[in-house]
Amino acid sequence: MAASQPVSVLITGANRGLGLEMVKQMVEGPNPAKKLFACCRDPDGSRAAALQTLAKKHPNIICVVRLDATDLCSIKQAAQQVGSLLGTGGLNLLINNAGFLAKATLQDTTPEDMQGSFNTNVMGPMNIIKEFLPHLRTAAKASEVPGMSSSKAAVISISSFLGSFESVKHSYSFIPAVSYRISKAGLNMLTLCAAEELKKDGILFSVLHPGWVRTDMGGEEGEIDAPESVQGMLSVMASLTEKQNGAFLDYKGNTIAW
Amino acid sequence: MAASQPVSVLITGANRGLGLEMVKQMVEGPNPAKKLFACCRDPDGSRAAALQTLAKKHPNIICVVRLDATDLCSIKQAAQQVGSLLGTGGLNLLINNAGFLAKATLQDTTPEDMQGSFNTNVMGPMNIIKEFLPHLRTAAKASEVPGMSSSKAAVISISSFLGSFESVKHSYSFIPAVSYRISKAGLNMLTLCAAEELKKDGILFSVLHPGWVRTDMGGEEGEIDAPESVQGMLSVMASLTEKQNGAFLDYKGNTIAW
Repeated sequence: MAASQPVSVLITGANRGLGLEMVKQMVEGPNPAKKLFACCRDPDGSRAAALQTLAKKHPNIICVVRLDATDLCSIKQAAQQVGSLLGTGGLNLLINNAGFLAKATLQDTTPEDMQGSFNTNVMGPMNIIKEFLPHLRTAAKASEVPGMSSSKAAVISISSFLGSFESVKHSYSFIPAVSYRISKAGLNMLTLCAAEELKKDGILFSVLHPGWVRTDMGGEEGEIDAPESVQGMLSVMASLTEKQNGAFLDYKGNTIAW
Repeated sequence: MAASQPVSVLITGANRGLGLEMVKQMVEGPNPAKKLFACCRDPDGSRAAALQTLAKKHPNIICVVRLDATDLCSIKQAAQQVGSLLGTGGLNLLINNAGFLAKATLQDTTPEDMQGSFNTNVMGPMNIIKEFLPHLRTAAKASEVPGMSSSKAAVISISSFLGSFESVKHSYSFIPAVSYRISKAGLNMLTLCAAEELKKDGILFSVLHPGWVRTDMGGEEGEIDAPESVQGMLSVMASLTEKQNGAFLDYKGNTIAW
């Protein structure tokens, strides 16, 4: 990211895949974040080992925080903990990255797929936005720069082109993922509503499609690897202004149709 | 509706508002349905009195069925009951009309608003489509008419222009309804996926916006009354062909942008 690097950043689902790669690039890039809250469900579990190793290398920047996006109580605790560690500058950038994917067709989708997708991909970001809103407002107020940017106060949610209505016709046959598509359309709508409601507070909201990435979630047949996707997304985030408030963009910065 | 009136119809949320008006027009119009399953959560409660009165007037057509869209067990029971009453012609037209509306802004939306909207407006239609699919397939197979229509085999879900991304900018300030918008965007996506997956079975799926109607849900400030909305929607339903499979239309037949 360019000179407009945010001072404080929070990333959910930071223990693997795109989340872990974001943490890595944000602390090891040329212009690192000053404070990075790397959130995951189980910081002490084996699946957070790589994140903990990275955090030990950058103890003054990375703070690993327990946050389960499906648990309001856990979100409230994380917001309180982060609040106590943030300075008067507030939280500049919140990245809703934690996600849940079930690939089933409509006929094979279970109520558990539906509820799991909704909890992690819609209800989670909704509750996280609400609980961290005071910290984002603090950041927006503390900034003396006019306009909007991800270095001032922004919420970027990782969505997917599968949440685009336009994508269904040409992608349904090889990846139906009905519950995932429904939840990502919901996340997109949540983002657009938040953008509308909170523009007066100077907080920017956008959704990003990371590309089809070779991660645990994207599978081996993905088109790009995590470093390329994250490099693209961080560059897009750094470029956002009030013109992209409520936008749906891919990792190259192209607008995706709803 | 024209000569293409479906033989068998099922309507959820049929005890009041648009649902009750649909039942009325479908049995009292010039070309009535042969069998109409009017579903509601509590057929014996006071809120179903008007429906019961109507059913007594048309005992050979209207069958009042207990169905709670938020309860999978209730949906399964209703599908079984309806199956036992349907002839070999199956179910021609299923109308997902039951809905849940919370009007709050993002900041005032509660987890209960979110879950309630999701349960009734997304999970309900999903489970209803899945459980009634065998009856719809029977209807599609029994028909000797090529193509798709609502008199052959169709699922029409009552959505709202508030679920349209394009609508947010100009309507958010007077009706935020965040949880409702998210759920209707989800219902729209569910419909588009179903249209794609089940087109090979000859079952048509569309979503309709009923207009802003003066009902309990729409409020007194609505622009049209329930009879006008339903007259329009029934006319649109009767006009649907495979060209409108996966379409989002208003009660006048105009396409709404996702």
